Amino acid sequence: MVNFRKISEAIQFATDKMKKNGLFETERFFCDLYCFEPDQSQAAHTHEGSDKIYYVVQGRGSFQIGNEERDLGEGEIALASSGQKHGVTNHGPGRLVLLVFMAPKPSH
Amino acid sequence: MVNFRKISEAIQFATDKMKKNGLFETERFFCDLYCFEPDQSQAAHTHEGSDKIYYVVQGRGSFQIGNEERDLGEGEIALASSGQKHGVTNHGPGRLVLLVFMAPKPSH
Repeated sequence: MVNFRKISEAIQFATDKMKKNGLFETERFFCDLYCFEPDQSQAAHTHEGSDKIYYVVQGRGSFQIGNEERDLGEGEIALASSGQKHGVTNHGPGRLVLLVFMAPKPSH
Repeated sequence: MVNFRKISEAIQFATDKMKKNGLFETERFFCDLYCFEPDQSQAAHTHEGSDKIYYVVQGRGSFQIGNEERDLGEGEIALASSGQKHGVTNHGPGRLVLLVFMAPKPSH
């Protein structure tokens, strides 16, 4: 089992859409690194029975949680609880890197 | 429900021991900010049935996970799975700030 990772070595972007890079996965949760080029998004969606956290590692993004929309930069963090709609957009001009934590792992 | 937090506003240290500052708590997990002055530690311990992640926001610390010990700096991350012994020490000279996720919440 790998117990230690370096974020800088896990960062990968994709040209067609935002890229999810797995850091850790257990029976109980996953921890990913989401990488957005400018104008890439994660469309707003909902998970029933799972909670998710977004932490901004690099850049700036627009976060929708429930009915609220907020711009967050490095060192800011957002919670989307079970049933709360959530999505992210990188309006640019820089890249956006998020640490994402979700428990329990969704079944879809 | 608070959905957005700023790490810089949640950082608090204590002189007697490392300080845990809650960021988010749900039925399914907690997300805390652990703040260590130099020479403060979280003694090695084990949780059965919960997994924990440590992410280094600021500073440098020595992390024990299972039988492995590793120095981690900003942007490095560690996983302690259920049953794996884990602990952290800040050998200084700077302060250490960790983002910590744990799921599910331990019962003790």
